[in-house]
Amino acid sequence: MNAAILSIGDELVTGLTVDTNSSWLAGRLIARGLTVVETRSVPDDRARIAQAIRELGVRVGALVITGGLGPTPDDLTREALGDVLTPGEPLERDEAAERLIERWFARTGRAMPESNRRQAQRPRGAVMIPNAHGTAPGIAAAWGEGGCRILVMPGVPREMKPMFEENADACLPRDDRQVTVIRSIHTCGLGESDLAQRLGSILSRDRQPQVGTAAGGSMVSVRIYARGPAAQAARDAEQTRREVEPILSPYAYGCDGESLPAALLRELAQRGLTIATAESCTGGLAGQLITSAPGSSAWYRGGWVTYSNDLKVACLDVPMAMIRAHGAVSEPVACAMAGGALRRAQSNLAVSITGVAGPDGGTEAKPVGTVWIGCGRTSGDAVETWARHFRFGGDREAIRERAARTALQMARWAALGVDRRTPLLGEVVSTMAESEPRP
Amino acid sequence: MNAAILSIGDELVTGLTVDTNSSWLAGRLIARGLTVVETRSVPDDRARIAQAIRELGVRVGALVITGGLGPTPDDLTREALGDVLTPGEPLERDEAAERLIERWFARTGRAMPESNRRQAQRPRGAVMIPNAHGTAPGIAAAWGEGGCRILVMPGVPREMKPMFEENADACLPRDDRQVTVIRSIHTCGLGESDLAQRLGSILSRDRQPQVGTAAGGSMVSVRIYARGPAAQAARDAEQTRREVEPILSPYAYGCDGESLPAALLRELAQRGLTIATAESCTGGLAGQLITSAPGSSAWYRGGWVTYSNDLKVACLDVPMAMIRAHGAVSEPVACAMAGGALRRAQSNLAVSITGVAGPDGGTEAKPVGTVWIGCGRTSGDAVETWARHFRFGGDREAIRERAARTALQMARWAALGVDRRTPLLGEVVSTMAESEPRP
Repeated sequence: MNAAILSIGDELVTGLTVDTNSSWLAGRLIARGLTVVETRSVPDDRARIAQAIRELGVRVGALVITGGLGPTPDDLTREALGDVLTPGEPLERDEAAERLIERWFARTGRAMPESNRRQAQRPRGAVMIPNAHGTAPGIAAAWGEGGCRILVMPGVPREMKPMFEENADACLPRDDRQVTVIRSIHTCGLGESDLAQRLGSILSRDRQPQVGTAAGGSMVSVRIYARGPAAQAARDAEQTRREVEPILSPYAYGCDGESLPAALLRELAQRGLTIATAESCTGGLAGQLITSAPGSSAWYRGGWVTYSNDLKVACLDVPMAMIRAHGAVSEPVACAMAGGALRRAQSNLAVSITGVAGPDGGTEAKPVGTVWIGCGRTSGDAVETWARHFRFGGDREAIRERAARTALQMARWAALGVDRRTPLLGEVVSTMAESEPRP
Repeated sequence: MNAAILSIGDELVTGLTVDTNSSWLAGRLIARGLTVVETRSVPDDRARIAQAIRELGVRVGALVITGGLGPTPDDLTREALGDVLTPGEPLERDEAAERLIERWFARTGRAMPESNRRQAQRPRGAVMIPNAHGTAPGIAAAWGEGGCRILVMPGVPREMKPMFEENADACLPRDDRQVTVIRSIHTCGLGESDLAQRLGSILSRDRQPQVGTAAGGSMVSVRIYARGPAAQAARDAEQTRREVEPILSPYAYGCDGESLPAALLRELAQRGLTIATAESCTGGLAGQLITSAPGSSAWYRGGWVTYSNDLKVACLDVPMAMIRAHGAVSEPVACAMAGGALRRAQSNLAVSITGVAGPDGGTEAKPVGTVWIGCGRTSGDAVETWARHFRFGGDREAIRERAARTALQMARWAALGVDRRTPLLGEVVSTMAESEPRP
């Protein structure tokens, strides 16, 4: 069965917002055995929204709509849906939905503004869907001779996604005879072309299930697409996953959306290890990533953002003479930061990051993108530290992102006992004579 | 004049790739005085591509198409364009384009594969556009009674963007009499409906320039769309901006893409103030945000991520007895963390965040979402601290994001000397008897 996705909002057609909902929804619809034949965005214009619903509604069996359900006068999706479903009739007030919105405001300690009452309106015959994460309820309906199933949801992703997950089965068709099962294997520290070389003919377009790659920052994900009856496709995808994963070891850290922080915490928890962070140029990003994983408080002790040199000395016991002799962005300082964090936090592991994120501050010897990442590990009563030298590409944000993620991968490898010479993307390998890039 | 954008590719309708081209192009078209009334994505399917070109071509005066110009058999945009422009006729071979493709391969030291010859084909009457960054030439044409101008470009952004910049003037209409100038005012700490109440009739759909809102997390942006002759539209937009900004004070922190961290740093720099952070549940997010702004090292001293209670004691001098008496998520601990950071970092300002981000750890008295945000400020030789109590909605990520951004706004207000009782979104106001909601 065919499906379409309609996104509504001036911000989408004026270049202010990139529509990420459609891509997410497309993946979910495909997993239900639906074929997405079109995605469309239109502005907050009642007539254009209604026209799009009519055009798509006769073309597909399932239409998912996001956006335009807010409380302000430019949110017109409800009215446009009414123009299609119940032309000429006013919207109906849904009392149950209105009570839910009132309750939502009460829970967050606010009185409901009058404007939010509009959010409880729907066309006659349509069904409202509770929103657990915001005030805008969704709307489910069927339309036309073909009985196209329509699901309308708010455009805010963190409201839309849980609403979809909880209500798709009740509101949308499903076809288990020809689904596409998509599995992912996530890697960090391996370049896309190195990864392609490792996989070789597995990436051939003719292969079934098909295997592709998607790169983002220092992370590359391998995607497996298995088509067929649900159970068969799931088996095929799992078989390919088992074939691919060992080829990508130790870069592959997780599957199917598992984050690098979650994977790191899993390894720490399995071994009963605690970790601490010491950051300079990343400003807290590594700590923020680690603590993004629920349950991190059991294994993450804490961290220091020693942005200024005197705090490196005062908080992490880095000798000022060492900073003067080698600079703050150097191997000994990275090691000293990791060692200081380890001792001060009384953790088993520590990672440190010191670098030049730019746009200013680069020199010929240490250009923008230069980063030293340190690791510390307790070994009996002793503390062992080491550091690796990187030159990351991209702007300030990309450099910081790559540095923090690479630090997490190094921490993961430290927990796993991976050989410290295993190449990492962006690393600069020093020889006696000169620095040379390493794949 | 109306315009539309059509993106072609299986990856766009299967959820593998987020379409960023359309957003970029929409901004460019609007700046040319065109109104984008629709963006659409369809799969690599000849009939569906042709149908979309026909539907959009009669609806708009300018149609920009990206994707499906590669050399492989699933690249069918050329053929579909031919089905619309010259139905029943084969495509023509463009010898000049073919020579350019051959030369591109010669430059990169490879022989041209036979499959790439397809890329030099175009419908009769269409014009090929050289591609400086890849093998796929673009195609320009006009179609239909309305003379809709069509520009087809490759989907790879680094090929598409320069091709657009170099050829838009030759291939697409421009209307300086009727451009849209978009200005934004960004706020933090004010709910979307509260903001709408403040703006009142300014949000009316009839107003010129039109004003709308876009929400994300605890941030709401006001968007001003001024249409008219270029110079006039710029003046109108600026006038509305000046009208709106004071109404949103002190929540409005910046305009036209300025980030909250950049705005905070601007205020700190103007007053010569330094800042430090002390974080628990946000795990480094506040520090990471502050340091995301280039030049932050001059004003950001550093921070502590005291995730465990003993680090709150050891690093920030929070008395363990205080934590035992009030809990780590409490007003006195938030104040003590801010004060400790201020003294240890020797900064002028400090913010602290301690809360329950979930999903676990909530209690009846302190449910998930409960956050205390503290502020510290030097006042002569003395240190002054205060804290405010929030209950943020959403999941772990949303709670952390809202807490960190609210902390930055509180720091900005501390620098500006804003009344500390100014309401903030999500705040819980305690009275002697009970907790009561505040708008």
